[in-house]
Amino acid sequence: MARFAQEGGLFTECMDFHKLVQVRDSCRKYDTRPVEKEKIDRILEACRLAPSACNSQPWKFVVVDEPGLRDQLAGTTVGPMLKFNRFCLQAPVMVALVAEPPSWLSKIGGKVKDKDFYLMDIGIVAEHLCLQAAELGLGSCMIGWFDEKKARQLLHIPSGKRIPLMISLGYPASDKQRKKIRKPMSEMVSYNRY
Amino acid sequence: MARFAQEGGLFTECMDFHKLVQVRDSCRKYDTRPVEKEKIDRILEACRLAPSACNSQPWKFVVVDEPGLRDQLAGTTVGPMLKFNRFCLQAPVMVALVAEPPSWLSKIGGKVKDKDFYLMDIGIVAEHLCLQAAELGLGSCMIGWFDEKKARQLLHIPSGKRIPLMISLGYPASDKQRKKIRKPMSEMVSYNRY
Repeated sequence: MARFAQEGGLFTECMDFHKLVQVRDSCRKYDTRPVEKEKIDRILEACRLAPSACNSQPWKFVVVDEPGLRDQLAGTTVGPMLKFNRFCLQAPVMVALVAEPPSWLSKIGGKVKDKDFYLMDIGIVAEHLCLQAAELGLGSCMIGWFDEKKARQLLHIPSGKRIPLMISLGYPASDKQRKKIRKPMSEMVSYNRY
Repeated sequence: MARFAQEGGLFTECMDFHKLVQVRDSCRKYDTRPVEKEKIDRILEACRLAPSACNSQPWKFVVVDEPGLRDQLAGTTVGPMLKFNRFCLQAPVMVALVAEPPSWLSKIGGKVKDKDFYLMDIGIVAEHLCLQAAELGLGSCMIGWFDEKKARQLLHIPSGKRIPLMISLGYPASDKQRKKIRKPMSEMVSYNRY
């Protein structure tokens, strides 16, 4: 079912959403191939069109592909002791997802209802990134654990702003699909009462 | 390009992710057609497979399709004065997305890094719901503004649990696609520095 997408001449496989969700995976091993600019553009376009509370779009993306800087940024995800997230050091692209102030309506609504809508928005847009990447044959991984202060300094992000997530991006070293371990449906769904 | 999906015999249009993202829309007008059980199952399966911080899966879905109860639940989204969200009263299905406690690792990580990972997870899984619904020809709308206490009582949700979102679901009354109003790419993306 492989085919050329209608626009842009990007070679994508047309898969239904069910298949796409299965293909998307947290990729923790990348090979050395660089990511084509046109693929990055397409991924960012999927993010641009993501929905958000009151259409706030409370996000900015800093795409880091300059090798020295990327290594330093990837370094902020590697713990000093446990050394998790080392796979980020292989990823050809790192994306820092910066939270921007939501619209006043989203902010007030969030205050009244005691909910941080912008964090849900960040989740939505990050998943748009990962799903679009998966369709284009790329691996990605959302990372929440990193030295945010250092990342902010490296990318010249103003000190008041948060970076809820970083996302690694690149061609997976293996195309073997891991089995997804999830709760059974019966544990997560009920009808008409909790 | 319409075709039958491989499993389940559900009639879905195979569209690439770019197209799917464009088709997904906040639907605020539903017609009277009920939603087929097999479509609801498929939507919930897309949610079940969603990623989450430390694979916590910190969510439960209460699907409300019993007419009397659904009307009452939809009523909790309609403000007493401004009467927004009235469209929920037409939706044949309402889904309450309940936040469940995340895993201890996600919780501790969130505490140390001062981030509510579970809210990002809720955003991710809610968008899986809406995207899968869109592929199946259904409209959906995430709603963050509702009387949470009343919703909790109606669905017998324990008082300590939060409902970050409700989602309305049904066949759209119109298949006209609204133009998406979004910031230009240049306002949301930069390379190698903020």
